[in-house]
Amino acid sequence: MRPQTLGLIGLGAIGGSIARQVKQPGRGGGIAVVGWSPEPAERALAAQEGALDDAPARATDVARLADLLILAAPPTANLAQLAALIPHLKPASLITDVGSVKRGIVARAERLGVAQRFAGSHPLAGTHRHGFAAAHADLFRGAVVYVTPCQDGADAAREIAHFWEDVLEAEPVMLDAARHDAQLAATSHVPQVIASLLGDFLARHAPAGSTFGTGAQDTTRLAASEPALWTEILLMNRDEILPALRALEESLGTVERALEVGDASALSAWLARAAAWRRRIGGGGSGL
Amino acid sequence: MRPQTLGLIGLGAIGGSIARQVKQPGRGGGIAVVGWSPEPAERALAAQEGALDDAPARATDVARLADLLILAAPPTANLAQLAALIPHLKPASLITDVGSVKRGIVARAERLGVAQRFAGSHPLAGTHRHGFAAAHADLFRGAVVYVTPCQDGADAAREIAHFWEDVLEAEPVMLDAARHDAQLAATSHVPQVIASLLGDFLARHAPAGSTFGTGAQDTTRLAASEPALWTEILLMNRDEILPALRALEESLGTVERALEVGDASALSAWLARAAAWRRRIGGGGSGL
Repeated sequence: MRPQTLGLIGLGAIGGSIARQVKQPGRGGGIAVVGWSPEPAERALAAQEGALDDAPARATDVARLADLLILAAPPTANLAQLAALIPHLKPASLITDVGSVKRGIVARAERLGVAQRFAGSHPLAGTHRHGFAAAHADLFRGAVVYVTPCQDGADAAREIAHFWEDVLEAEPVMLDAARHDAQLAATSHVPQVIASLLGDFLARHAPAGSTFGTGAQDTTRLAASEPALWTEILLMNRDEILPALRALEESLGTVERALEVGDASALSAWLARAAAWRRRIGGGGSGL
Repeated sequence: MRPQTLGLIGLGAIGGSIARQVKQPGRGGGIAVVGWSPEPAERALAAQEGALDDAPARATDVARLADLLILAAPPTANLAQLAALIPHLKPASLITDVGSVKRGIVARAERLGVAQRFAGSHPLAGTHRHGFAAAHADLFRGAVVYVTPCQDGADAAREIAHFWEDVLEAEPVMLDAARHDAQLAATSHVPQVIASLLGDFLARHAPAGSTFGTGAQDTTRLAASEPALWTEILLMNRDEILPALRALEESLGTVERALEVGDASALSAWLARAAAWRRRIGGGGSGL
């Protein structure tokens, strides 16, 4: 679909970037963008910078106007907004969200009776920065966006996937919400915990005056992510994340035992398995 | 000091980069560079690319010629080379190494009676790539290089620090070997273990077909480092690394308990401490 009016609830790094990209000169083909944020200053800034055609003071006014409504608030707020805004939507409008955990909101949409008008979305275009100031118009170009359908919601999911592809030049991938949450626990949520784990350790234990090279910088980059947002994400997906953390704890135990007894071949095998995987996936990092 | 002849034992990413930088046109002011690697092909390549003036077939021939000898092999080999090459050195020549762990080689130099001619060096200019092919002429410019003196070896340490600064444009910092090893355990060796821990986890547990974004890529970049080299480093510094890994295990337990009982404020405080630290140190990462 190509909405006449796109509605955005939340104007942070993700919502703001959607607005910016759609309203970029020569792009978006006449789509009107209306957006709301709980922060009046963020609404004013987005309108002033031309990312919004209208920035009403109430979220319900955005819902009323939108042919496609995108919930781009933190995950818990998205769940609440979905329930609050459905009564205000036009009958044929479609709804999606951009959160990192999908089972909860897909189940909520089904329970609220909008299974045929809702599909979850999750653009793999995160950033550890936040707020409209971190938004930019190229965030989604070429980015994978997972689209997670409701039961019997394949048509809506196709329309929403088409929006990501056609309007935002992203690469939508259909994925069941449960498979999404299992996959993202491994590829995104656990890396966040690991980066924060090292960041917390270094904050407490690095000797005063230590210099941190690109290695420590890269390994902890994600630790700068917004704590409030990640508290919600980790709690929402904890049934997938907890077994992973226990596996990590066990693996850490393996390294400790190898170091304790001086078992070079066990240590080397453990390092080599990770190295082979990392060299295979390529990309990333500021390393030389 | 500015040696007339610089000797290099090891022509990998570090040794090779030293050679390349000294022999760069318009730099190095006439310093002759002789180098040896156990790999004849690496010696030939380095000579062919103009990074060496001479590449003799035996390490002892390098030792015989050098006014400053730099041991740039892996740490265990450096320990062995130090003992093997001392009898072949000119009486006034200085010696250093470039390994990531310093107590062992400083103690070895003292035991071998070269405390007044040896200081350890550790350039913070690592790369996860290895071999002469990964060497480049700008690796040390502006990089911190720790210089760790032997007992009564302050003069030699000053000369060697001056070499790093004057010839390689690095920023030498004098540091006691024990303090160096404690600091690097936190800032470099533990980040390596953490990156490999996550890499090993993802190698085994990420669902097939998973996409890894810049977050997972950056957090695991160090995991691509050379397993054989890191096996040596981790074992050599294990008395510093093991308590750190136990602290990490405890911190991981804190997160697990917060997730198990749904303690949002504990989780948020833990994430916030790491975020505050990471935002403070700045730099690094390929993130948007």
